Amino acid sequence: MTQTKVKVKLGENNYGKAEINLMKINRDGKRHEIRELQVRVGMTGDFDAAHSQGDNSELVATDTVRNTVYGLAKEGFRSSPEEFGKELVTHLVKTGARVSGGFMEFTEHLWDRIQVDGQGHDHSFVRQMPKRTGRVESEDGQTFKVTSGIAELYVLKTTESGWENYLLDERFTTLPETHERVMATFVTARWEYNTDNPDYDAVWEKVFRQLQVTLTDHYSPSLQNTLYLMGEAVLSACPEISRIWFRMPNMHHLQYNLQRFGLENNLEIMHVDPEPYGLMEGWVERA
Amino acid sequence: MTQTKVKVKLGENNYGKAEINLMKINRDGKRHEIRELQVRVGMTGDFDAAHSQGDNSELVATDTVRNTVYGLAKEGFRSSPEEFGKELVTHLVKTGARVSGGFMEFTEHLWDRIQVDGQGHDHSFVRQMPKRTGRVESEDGQTFKVTSGIAELYVLKTTESGWENYLLDERFTTLPETHERVMATFVTARWEYNTDNPDYDAVWEKVFRQLQVTLTDHYSPSLQNTLYLMGEAVLSACPEISRIWFRMPNMHHLQYNLQRFGLENNLEIMHVDPEPYGLMEGWVERA
Amino acid sequence: MTQTKVKVKLGENNYGKAEINLMKINRDGKRHEIRELQVRVGMTGDFDAAHSQGDNSELVATDTVRNTVYGLAKEGFRSSPEEFGKELVTHLVKTGARVSGGFMEFTEHLWDRIQVDGQGHDHSFVRQMPKRTGRVESEDGQTFKVTSGIAELYVLKTTESGWENYLLDERFTTLPETHERVMATFVTARWEYNTDNPDYDAVWEKVFRQLQVTLTDHYSPSLQNTLYLMGEAVLSACPEISRIWFRMPNMHHLQYNLQRFGLENNLEIMHVDPEPYGLMEGWVERA
Amino acid sequence: MTQTKVKVKLGENNYGKAEINLMKINRDGKRHEIRELQVRVGMTGDFDAAHSQGDNSELVATDTVRNTVYGLAKEGFRSSPEEFGKELVTHLVKTGARVSGGFMEFTEHLWDRIQVDGQGHDHSFVRQMPKRTGRVESEDGQTFKVTSGIAELYVLKTTESGWENYLLDERFTTLPETHERVMATFVTARWEYNTDNPDYDAVWEKVFRQLQVTLTDHYSPSLQNTLYLMGEAVLSACPEISRIWFRMPNMHHLQYNLQRFGLENNLEIMHVDPEPYGLMEGWVERA
Repeated sequence: MTQTKVKVKLGENNYGKAEINLMKINRDGKRHEIRELQVRVGMTGDFDAAHSQGDNSELVATDTVRNTVYGLAKEGFRSSPEEFGKELVTHLVKTGARVSGGFMEFTEHLWDRIQVDGQGHDHSFVRQMPKRTGRVESEDGQTFKVTSGIAELYVLKTTESGWENYLLDERFTTLPETHERVMATFVTARWEYNTDNPDYDAVWEKVFRQLQVTLTDHYSPSLQNTLYLMGEAVLSACPEISRIWFRMPNMHHLQYNLQRFGLENNLEIMHVDPEPYGLMEGWVERA
Repeated sequence: MTQTKVKVKLGENNYGKAEINLMKINRDGKRHEIRELQVRVGMTGDFDAAHSQGDNSELVATDTVRNTVYGLAKEGFRSSPEEFGKELVTHLVKTGARVSGGFMEFTEHLWDRIQVDGQGHDHSFVRQMPKRTGRVESEDGQTFKVTSGIAELYVLKTTESGWENYLLDERFTTLPETHERVMATFVTARWEYNTDNPDYDAVWEKVFRQLQVTLTDHYSPSLQNTLYLMGEAVLSACPEISRIWFRMPNMHHLQYNLQRFGLENNLEIMHVDPEPYGLMEGWVERA
Repeated sequence: MTQTKVKVKLGENNYGKAEINLMKINRDGKRHEIRELQVRVGMTGDFDAAHSQGDNSELVATDTVRNTVYGLAKEGFRSSPEEFGKELVTHLVKTGARVSGGFMEFTEHLWDRIQVDGQGHDHSFVRQMPKRTGRVESEDGQTFKVTSGIAELYVLKTTESGWENYLLDERFTTLPETHERVMATFVTARWEYNTDNPDYDAVWEKVFRQLQVTLTDHYSPSLQNTLYLMGEAVLSACPEISRIWFRMPNMHHLQYNLQRFGLENNLEIMHVDPEPYGLMEGWVERA
Repeated sequence: MTQTKVKVKLGENNYGKAEINLMKINRDGKRHEIRELQVRVGMTGDFDAAHSQGDNSELVATDTVRNTVYGLAKEGFRSSPEEFGKELVTHLVKTGARVSGGFMEFTEHLWDRIQVDGQGHDHSFVRQMPKRTGRVESEDGQTFKVTSGIAELYVLKTTESGWENYLLDERFTTLPETHERVMATFVTARWEYNTDNPDYDAVWEKVFRQLQVTLTDHYSPSLQNTLYLMGEAVLSACPEISRIWFRMPNMHHLQYNLQRFGLENNLEIMHVDPEPYGLMEGWVERA
């Protein structure tokens, strides 16, 4: 399979280290604080010679990136993961001769204190399901674009939701309309800021609570409408957020056909169908 | 690849339906209750002809098993999943000409009420991480062996744990001893009962709380010892339980070596290593 | 938690059906052909009223999308999944009053014929590991942007690879240089075309073979260089491809330290470390 | 939550290290050989004091177990993973004061040589999907019970399979009978030996081929019958095997209802339904 080589060039690219699992424990005082992140770091810059010539000179090893994450986590990372991301990218641009920019993405695993006699314990924790996510990106190591997010927030309501008045395609529509169904979704959200130094931790808490509350406060004619109302509520509650994106699968809970067995089923006995699912994605922005 | 056939026979066997996803919603009154199970049902009996002769006569189709799960969930399933499992197996033995026994295994997904103004909402829920599990088994469709369990309970303590005084193998031991470390484990537990009709739901709640509390109440010299103390505490709190089994991986949180960079690390900056992990399994029983 | 509502608007958005699992079997003649796709379909268009007003009128239900996928698979889908994607998006734009564009993404599961006496069997198949992927997108239902790809191609070489001459960061570099190591990567690739109607199936086969061959034909000074050479080889072999993107994790195979036990280790006994990993991403384009 | 402690004791138990990822490369000569295992090692013995008293004296650390796996892989592991398991357990019983027995379980990842110009390459490999599994167990470190297996063998046939003549339950049977369907299963198999030192590698190859061939050689009236015929064929082909166990899910490929759209569907357009699935388990033994 010998080929004449054509002329090619390197396009957009980055490299770094992924799935670095970091826990930082604050042991000042008896009441410990923990934060656990899975981090991905990517660097951008002048990496042409490495790719086209196999010339690694002045290239930062990804192993060095790993060491840097743990080292800087000790010296910095005093507030949010987003601020830690800024420290990290700034450092890599400063120390990497060929690095001009980069990004850090993270997934934060959330831990609650274990409850003992109604009190959260000082140093014992239990993992929660939803995740906090984020991405900090810079083209110059000085100015940053920050996105924060939530993942794996699985919510459900057993009433106050329907799906009606949609297009009846002459051939392919078979679904009956309803104004009473079970609605469930596994929310992924991401938002951007209109200010440089928001309190990322406080905003996250507010969004996390608001998404759950909004689910409860309206009759939902569609996941699309709920997506929009969640966006509206978040933008109303958080002036620091400029826009928010959602990915909301419709986790179908289908009424199982019990009529065949002579049994009624008033949305009591549901089949939870894993695949396929309706999938809605959209941004809600300030007008 | 023509072979002379040797004489063979069917050994222990079962068949049924797996990963049936069922939600039952109780809509009596304004405050809805939900239970979501992933169910596996297996039947045992005289299935020799089906296997060796391809003779399906009087064989229950697995599709019928699925229908049965949903149908009986409507008519029964009024308390715990364990009781539902008994109803199901009893029914299959009664209606399946060749079925003499069987089992139902389940994983229950746990949902909390969404909090609105400090109150749990009537019909809106958010998924939790730990899972409730169980298995109901019968050889005759009348008497049952029941096992209940917990899975995906991820707990961690940042102090009050160590690992010392172990065997120093002349060649292969390289780990230093310590009386201060981070200990984390992803508990799977299963227990048996010494009574036929315990309140399965109440016992589960008690075990779930107790496991967390026991993690906090002692200095742990090893996961083995914590496993034992958890067992002892559960057996002390729940007279209905005869014995309890644990599978406890040691989710290693390793102090990252920062000395190389001129930095101290007093168990502040940890590398969470996913693989490999220490793994402890054991039963704790009444003496 | 009552909030004054701010004014918001809907931004970029789409909706559709995901994880539709489709198999099409060609039964013309004795020698059956199968194709198995997991499909996601998204629609774009004027969905503002649905989101902001809860007005579903003229909206295509995602259930209708599912039916459409299976219906059109019967009537069309005579060649590649990419061509099927074009048929599907064209149809949705034509029949959906509010739909102006859309996309279909797919993952194709690959099946080989089972070998019997050295011949591929007529109607029996065994699943392979790598996957074929693709995305067909249109803004108007008439002109298309097509991307094809490969996923889960896990390749490894035991020699002819190294990592040297990189930046020695004064603090954070601890990795020693080497010109002999094990290199392994789990290739994800995606490419674009410079022609409207290439033979998608033939191109895929060529890329799939070429990536494997290129791995073998050079000493690799870095994954970045191998990424580039793979891109160069593909662009040389396939005039239909305009550019190709790779995501190549460095699946670290680390020499286990056996010296502590008085044993030599000349890259014989390796620890395969799942996390973290180096991660390279980049486009290779025609110059 | 203070409880009076009841008297308890330790039941059956074991501990060790799981998910140790090991690759051994044979570099004798130009043509390299590789084997990649994920290993779990468990030890049994007198671990009562560790559990009940927190007394770790003479306990083997799981970190020592890991080192032992890599160290012994260098000194031994010259043939099959099963033989390596015997070496490992023998060693642990010999060196661990409190260890009287133990087991090693493994999953072997399979690699093919990359094909270049029709030849398998000397040192470049591509990962395959099926896995080889096994478990070696001993109560005394001298005599062994060995089980070998296959996992993730996904096979499918598009014809020559049906499901008829089964029990028509008056209420819950809704499935129509058929003598023509698509049958697919994701085989897990495990077998035992009637000899102490079989050629484990050769037997595995034979079973792996035979399972595929048997799928093709008969009309299947049920997965149960195919399970039995696979067992019969393996026992006929491999005199070293005493009995074989299968776990065979029925990966449902359902004819999608196209009649609603005025289209015929002669098992051409199939919905691959991931959950639930029929599940068959059984042993086939020598008569």
